[in-house]
Amino acid sequence: MKRIAISIGDLNGIGVELALRHHETVKTLCDPLYLIDREMLEQAAGILGVDVPGDFTLASPGAEPFTIRPGTVDAEAGAYSFASFKSAVELCAASEADAVCTLPIHKKAWEEAGIPYKGHTDALRDFFGREAIMMLGCPGMYVGLYTEHIPLKEVPGALDEESLTRFLLDFHRETGAEEIAVLGLNPHAGDHGVLGDEETIIEAAIDAANRSIQNPKSKIQNRPFTGPLVPDTAFTPAVRRRYRYYVAMYHDQGLIPLKALHFDESINVSLNLPILRTSVDHGTAYDIAYRGKSPNPTSYLNALAYAVDSPKT
Amino acid sequence: MKRIAISIGDLNGIGVELALRHHETVKTLCDPLYLIDREMLEQAAGILGVDVPGDFTLASPGAEPFTIRPGTVDAEAGAYSFASFKSAVELCAASEADAVCTLPIHKKAWEEAGIPYKGHTDALRDFFGREAIMMLGCPGMYVGLYTEHIPLKEVPGALDEESLTRFLLDFHRETGAEEIAVLGLNPHAGDHGVLGDEETIIEAAIDAANRSIQNPKSKIQNRPFTGPLVPDTAFTPAVRRRYRYYVAMYHDQGLIPLKALHFDESINVSLNLPILRTSVDHGTAYDIAYRGKSPNPTSYLNALAYAVDSPKT
Repeated sequence: MKRIAISIGDLNGIGVELALRHHETVKTLCDPLYLIDREMLEQAAGILGVDVPGDFTLASPGAEPFTIRPGTVDAEAGAYSFASFKSAVELCAASEADAVCTLPIHKKAWEEAGIPYKGHTDALRDFFGREAIMMLGCPGMYVGLYTEHIPLKEVPGALDEESLTRFLLDFHRETGAEEIAVLGLNPHAGDHGVLGDEETIIEAAIDAANRSIQNPKSKIQNRPFTGPLVPDTAFTPAVRRRYRYYVAMYHDQGLIPLKALHFDESINVSLNLPILRTSVDHGTAYDIAYRGKSPNPTSYLNALAYAVDSPKT
Repeated sequence: MKRIAISIGDLNGIGVELALRHHETVKTLCDPLYLIDREMLEQAAGILGVDVPGDFTLASPGAEPFTIRPGTVDAEAGAYSFASFKSAVELCAASEADAVCTLPIHKKAWEEAGIPYKGHTDALRDFFGREAIMMLGCPGMYVGLYTEHIPLKEVPGALDEESLTRFLLDFHRETGAEEIAVLGLNPHAGDHGVLGDEETIIEAAIDAANRSIQNPKSKIQNRPFTGPLVPDTAFTPAVRRRYRYYVAMYHDQGLIPLKALHFDESINVSLNLPILRTSVDHGTAYDIAYRGKSPNPTSYLNALAYAVDSPKT
């Protein structure tokens, strides 16, 4: 079984409750290693009124224990959640775990703790000195984002044949996907240039990526990349039955349909780094933390399942 | 009952089959007036092997009868479908019908017939000398498009406070919607300017539009417009339960989620013209025309129901 290092997230939020309540299910998927001290775990279990499972394997994040204050932005909780994340990444980088799965942190708590990162992705960029590919999705549908957090007006200029080709090849290698739908940029994918011409760049990148994957000695055509697809019909039921992996040219092109269709199931995956990191795609949910509301574990379990099934692990 | 002028569409496609097969249902919604000659109707019914209902009220488009060739692009069919559409619009403009509902035409057939328009919307623009507002949707969700068929790179520059304010007020008046969700342009709606600043224009337009609707003598706050909403979470189930009407800043922002969620149910509505025109949101489906496949009537029935329920009729 693959060992997944689980960073416990902000202990004033719902992360530790997900870990405690779903340990039995998680054990069927992987060998979980939780980055939390026993003292903190018992404190959380006490507030929640649940038992700590006997086979809950822990590793210490090496941070100061503190008093949990459910639903509160707190510098100590911020420092602890950062240490838990950092330790999980280090274990994985040292090959003591196969992947990292992150439970939600609170960005404001990191800020109050003086952590110099806006979030997990920002920290990973600094740890490894490179940009990750951001992919979001769920078992039915994954979307890789060619551009992410940039203003919409900068998107067309960011399209470049060489970087898109490299992006497609990285995405293909890291996901192991056999068929990948690559979206156009413009309405109707430009309608033969009438509504924009960036599709010529996308088409050239798709061709270059397909050529580069094709074994020249093989007669079998292997063209994993299809497109540029007309964006507004790319997520209809018939097209989704055909493709599980999409590459979107910009943030909302990929995330609008994903969240409209699969809001509660979604996970966030950081690809193209020395380690694989998967994450729940929800926040700390302070409003329901430690209130007996049993937060929905779908995203958490999907994040673990992806980590286990990935060709990277 | 409201009288709806139904233009019959391309007779080599599925339009007339929808009209014939669903007349009984249509009669419960409205008083339909079909723009087709008896001779052509009987020819179509003969090929389909269905009877012409006794109370099928017709008006002649005044075009040349021709031989139906199922699934074929044909200049005669193009000329006939244009005449049917034009007559329906004229009847409505002369107040002999309350709205026009269009069945699908084939653009190539119009071209072969020498019709100087790319489609219905293009023709309406010329008939009335003004731009329509394009709204797509279904009973659960309608999306008005502030910009439509322009390249994505031109969208940010097309955002202008004055035109957006006017658009919002027109959209509100024409739909009668009480609550309208207005989307931001950038990821995370710009995240306080970090990811783009066009949201300040959208915010100003929303404020101006809300102020203009508010009766200064009334103490009751009436703010139909909300936003700018973060685009990628605007179509999650919880938000959709709250809003039925959305205004999207660009084509794919509105149509990606609509088609992902409601592909078969969608209709197309032309607002802000002297007449109301609703339409099916599918094509002539030549591949299944006259083949006993009973095309899905949801879009057709939704288009008629919208025409009947609209505050414009």
